[in-house]
Amino acid sequence: MKPVSNQPDYKYRVEVCFLPGQYPLYAKDMGIVVVIDVLRATSAMVTAFDHGVDRIIPVATIEEATQYIGLPGYIVAAERNGEVVDGFQYGNSPLAFKGQDLRGKTIVITTTNGTRAINLARNARQLVVGAFLNMTALSEWLVKQNDNILLLCSGWRDKFNLEDSIFAGAVMDRLLESGKFGVEEDSSIAAKYLYLAARENFLSLLKAAPRRRRLEQLKLQDDVKFCLTPDQSSMIPVLRDGVLVPMVHEPVNT
Amino acid sequence: MKPVSNQPDYKYRVEVCFLPGQYPLYAKDMGIVVVIDVLRATSAMVTAFDHGVDRIIPVATIEEATQYIGLPGYIVAAERNGEVVDGFQYGNSPLAFKGQDLRGKTIVITTTNGTRAINLARNARQLVVGAFLNMTALSEWLVKQNDNILLLCSGWRDKFNLEDSIFAGAVMDRLLESGKFGVEEDSSIAAKYLYLAARENFLSLLKAAPRRRRLEQLKLQDDVKFCLTPDQSSMIPVLRDGVLVPMVHEPVNT
Repeated sequence: MKPVSNQPDYKYRVEVCFLPGQYPLYAKDMGIVVVIDVLRATSAMVTAFDHGVDRIIPVATIEEATQYIGLPGYIVAAERNGEVVDGFQYGNSPLAFKGQDLRGKTIVITTTNGTRAINLARNARQLVVGAFLNMTALSEWLVKQNDNILLLCSGWRDKFNLEDSIFAGAVMDRLLESGKFGVEEDSSIAAKYLYLAARENFLSLLKAAPRRRRLEQLKLQDDVKFCLTPDQSSMIPVLRDGVLVPMVHEPVNT
Repeated sequence: MKPVSNQPDYKYRVEVCFLPGQYPLYAKDMGIVVVIDVLRATSAMVTAFDHGVDRIIPVATIEEATQYIGLPGYIVAAERNGEVVDGFQYGNSPLAFKGQDLRGKTIVITTTNGTRAINLARNARQLVVGAFLNMTALSEWLVKQNDNILLLCSGWRDKFNLEDSIFAGAVMDRLLESGKFGVEEDSSIAAKYLYLAARENFLSLLKAAPRRRRLEQLKLQDDVKFCLTPDQSSMIPVLRDGVLVPMVHEPVNT
């Protein structure tokens, strides 16, 4: 295993935090936070904006989400443990948003992991949303920023998860290549090596992961495959005053 | 990346927990807990038993440790942030114990990360201590046990660390080869792949890790090199009634 990079003269740091619960230990000096919940909240958010949604309001609890049901112009989505919560139209499936005309709508969403991570990091100077779907657009946008960047994985029920960590390693790899960024944290080095081990076949990696087997049992194979297919979008959801809004960044090197 | 194993008919689980703070999420059904703090607490414990220590009392605070100073037959060790705490004879350096005659002595020790992990898991049915120093002895002993095994990394100031995680992956790799054990957790799969990426050169990996650079600044290169050299011992420290005692397991396949 070679060192991650010689990092001779980097200007900014890019780090990976594996768990929302660890966020306070990693947040110091991090101007930009990228929230990652590949399966499936952040993938769903990217997809929803691609289909015309005006804004997405992430809320922490089902109770908060319930208050928006029936309001004109609102779509209310709630997911717990991989399933749509009873009484809600949507969960966190990106495919449910695909092919729909959602122009001008507001989505209110609460999910098991992803919206929790967003709420934890909401006071960051800049918070954006990442997923394989917008990987290249996101990476190219991040490289242009002059700030430290924290890649915040949402985990799974407070535990480490593979797909978020591998994605974080992939984005980090691109940022390190620029020479502008360096790493300090062991978790960041680990994420990069996980990505290098996984990059040839994300799907076979996740076949090894028990949670993927669980998603298969829930008949979500199409969703998983969609979420793990990079660069389907140039959309970067960005948090403004507690609400996610669309930002389009056309990548040069897709 | 190939699946970790096909795991067709495993009888027991072996899992990796990256952080002491995550222990409650991983502890269920885990009969055996292996506490890992490669740099340097668990390496020091193995070394101390190799030099004749009767028992090691892990304590959580410096205040508790202080109460044993001056008692006949007691050696009191306290480490915080990599350094010996003022007023104590020893910290967590294994080399400090090497070459000494410690026969019949009791060590009382408190460290930044390792003793905390031991105290968290003290109610496990069986708690043992692992380090590169006893890797093969430990792995061969573990393979013979009929129980689920949790490899508990001590982390660094509540954060993920590379050396503990890689060591856990190495032990897991040996247990999976037996066919008797399987994994369920994403963290376990990640640890195994980190080990596979690192196994050719632990030292060069840790050169990439900023914390190793910090240890170098503290002039601890010899300690680090010693701690990362596998199979120098057949000693497995085991917790009995809150106290670590020596258990020797002569490995067959060193």
